[in-house]
Amino acid sequence: MTDPVALTKALLACESVTPAQGPVFDVLEAALLPLGFTIDRFLVGHEPDGPVENLLATRDGAGTHLAFAGHLDVVPPGTGWTNGAYTPVERGGLLYGRGAVDMKGAIAAFVAAIPTEPSIPLSLIITGDEEGPATFGTCALIERMRATGVAPDLCLVGEPTSSARLGDMIKIGRRGSVNLWISVPGKQGHVAYPQLADNPIPRLVAILAEIDAIVLDTGNAWFQPSNIEVTDITVGNPATNVIPAQASARLSIRFNDEQRGTALVERIEALVRAHAPAAHVTARISGEAFLTPPGTFSTLIGDAIAARTGIRPDLSTTGGTSDARFLSALCPTVEFGLTNATMHKVDEAVEIEDLAILGEIYRDIIARVDRL
Amino acid sequence: MTDPVALTKALLACESVTPAQGPVFDVLEAALLPLGFTIDRFLVGHEPDGPVENLLATRDGAGTHLAFAGHLDVVPPGTGWTNGAYTPVERGGLLYGRGAVDMKGAIAAFVAAIPTEPSIPLSLIITGDEEGPATFGTCALIERMRATGVAPDLCLVGEPTSSARLGDMIKIGRRGSVNLWISVPGKQGHVAYPQLADNPIPRLVAILAEIDAIVLDTGNAWFQPSNIEVTDITVGNPATNVIPAQASARLSIRFNDEQRGTALVERIEALVRAHAPAAHVTARISGEAFLTPPGTFSTLIGDAIAARTGIRPDLSTTGGTSDARFLSALCPTVEFGLTNATMHKVDEAVEIEDLAILGEIYRDIIARVDRL
Ligand SMILES: [Zn+2]
Ligand SMILES: [Zn+2]
Repeated sequence: MTDPVALTKALLACESVTPAQGPVFDVLEAALLPLGFTIDRFLVGHEPDGPVENLLATRDGAGTHLAFAGHLDVVPPGTGWTNGAYTPVERGGLLYGRGAVDMKGAIAAFVAAIPTEPSIPLSLIITGDEEGPATFGTCALIERMRATGVAPDLCLVGEPTSSARLGDMIKIGRRGSVNLWISVPGKQGHVAYPQLADNPIPRLVAILAEIDAIVLDTGNAWFQPSNIEVTDITVGNPATNVIPAQASARLSIRFNDEQRGTALVERIEALVRAHAPAAHVTARISGEAFLTPPGTFSTLIGDAIAARTGIRPDLSTTGGTSDARFLSALCPTVEFGLTNATMHKVDEAVEIEDLAILGEIYRDIIARVDRL
Repeated sequence: MTDPVALTKALLACESVTPAQGPVFDVLEAALLPLGFTIDRFLVGHEPDGPVENLLATRDGAGTHLAFAGHLDVVPPGTGWTNGAYTPVERGGLLYGRGAVDMKGAIAAFVAAIPTEPSIPLSLIITGDEEGPATFGTCALIERMRATGVAPDLCLVGEPTSSARLGDMIKIGRRGSVNLWISVPGKQGHVAYPQLADNPIPRLVAILAEIDAIVLDTGNAWFQPSNIEVTDITVGNPATNVIPAQASARLSIRFNDEQRGTALVERIEALVRAHAPAAHVTARISGEAFLTPPGTFSTLIGDAIAARTGIRPDLSTTGGTSDARFLSALCPTVEFGLTNATMHKVDEAVEIEDLAILGEIYRDIIARVDRL
């Protein structure tokens, strides 16, 4: 049986900033082959966001098909690490290294949890681009799964969902996210002759005041209220006596499952046009909101966590987006992994004991799915 | 008698971007000495806005003391001149060179207008810093005049006030001007957790919306309405998922004689504080509004213009500030000079014929003041 600590260390030793490829995938492949998995590795995309390596591992079995999804890429380590970001070091019960909790440790724990004996159909959906634009990552894997007939019934995503301690939180959904750029044109001029100019700032201010007054919803049982933030305003006019020719703003909307990103974009576009018909609005929807309503799968995971740790996880939908937004289109999708206190930070570290415990919980989840 | 075209050319040939000193003043001094003027030249100030050269020329006489005020500095020439900016060239009835209309040409015209025979008391108040911060310019000259007992009864400022043709407009006042910088602090955070952050943008937007709604006044017989422009907004937040820590805006207020700059600043400060008690407001008052109410002096100038050109000038208060704002505190002050179509532009040029005509009008003004 795979040692989750040893496998985590081997993965941490591979540099794998997004877009990741090569050695870190070699390590995972070497761990999966002895377990009887068929490995499908493929490169997708091109500069600057690619090429990205993806790995789809499948093992036949009988019963409910469980997929485990995750990513081997990491965010850039930054500077100031006590040891190297890619030099795994154990100290004081912790294992340090970029990706320790997000999420090489969880991948190792899942590999350690895979039964050596025949079991349910299992897949590992592993991308090298979750932290980046995700253009060539999980979406490409889902395309590959469609093309090759890999169709899981349930999907467990190994993101670091635990907060204060392992198992205190799992995610059954995520908010959607859309960024918008509003650009209002005007006519440059001198402040002494305002009648000859057309200042775009008052129109932008009126737009933003109306946007600030919007209450999208008040949230629901599973989601906090949807929220619009104006995150930037740019005019870029260095001259105190000049009326500027343009004013721009950027919005970030995080929304729950009562909203649709496309409808939000249309609403903002209409509002902007009412104030400034010549304005430009550019929108980028990172993901629609999704929810796997509490049910069999989340209860099963909660039972497995409670059996091992004695605590029952909160079913949460907080935080940023994750690749679960793509996978939830396939089947019920729940995220559960390590604690996230040090993710994306310098000296990211995992409790060594948690790697074993997480492996045991994952193994119990596989067993419980097998009994469905 | 001085040839205004030759003197203009000699002045144009001297580079004199603000802060100006040296050769251009030598040329003027050499033209004034034969006319019996006492010349007081002095340097004021220090880097970066100085040192600035100023010239106070006085000639005793009997009757009403008339001062002529102007500047020998010019704005930077920029690139793209057909000939050099400091290479005076006559072509098609025009004389080209930086400062041709603003306002070396008018200074030359006034020198050409000075009677060689005894006349009224005359002063020339000439600075090397009108286009710059004016810290060490006309204010220093006024200080010098106080100290040396030079006290004009009337002041003619040679700024290029004419619009479509020479003599169509004189200025009897100017609006005041104040710039304000508003900085609203907040607390940075992630858009996914707005409850942990404090976005300063909505407060800034509310401040600016309230400012945009202000109607300061509706103008009066001599001034257009006072006007507030928001000229810049800066947040400087490159990250789409970050709530920024600060948001700033800049205002430019041009106001008439129904407003006081200091009161406007207090009003904006109170408005800002009501929305954002921790906000910072910085204000810089460039000048209060002033008006020389239409009367003897402006009528006299209008009569002189009408006698020579057949047109009667509009009495205007439009445009940016000028040094007349300082001089008007001493005595009735009216501005009249060349056409301003090319001022501050590439290939700035004066109609050669206008130099002679302006000289004749200035001479007539001196004569009419002599008859008061
Ligand atoms: Zn992750
Ligand atoms: Zn000027």
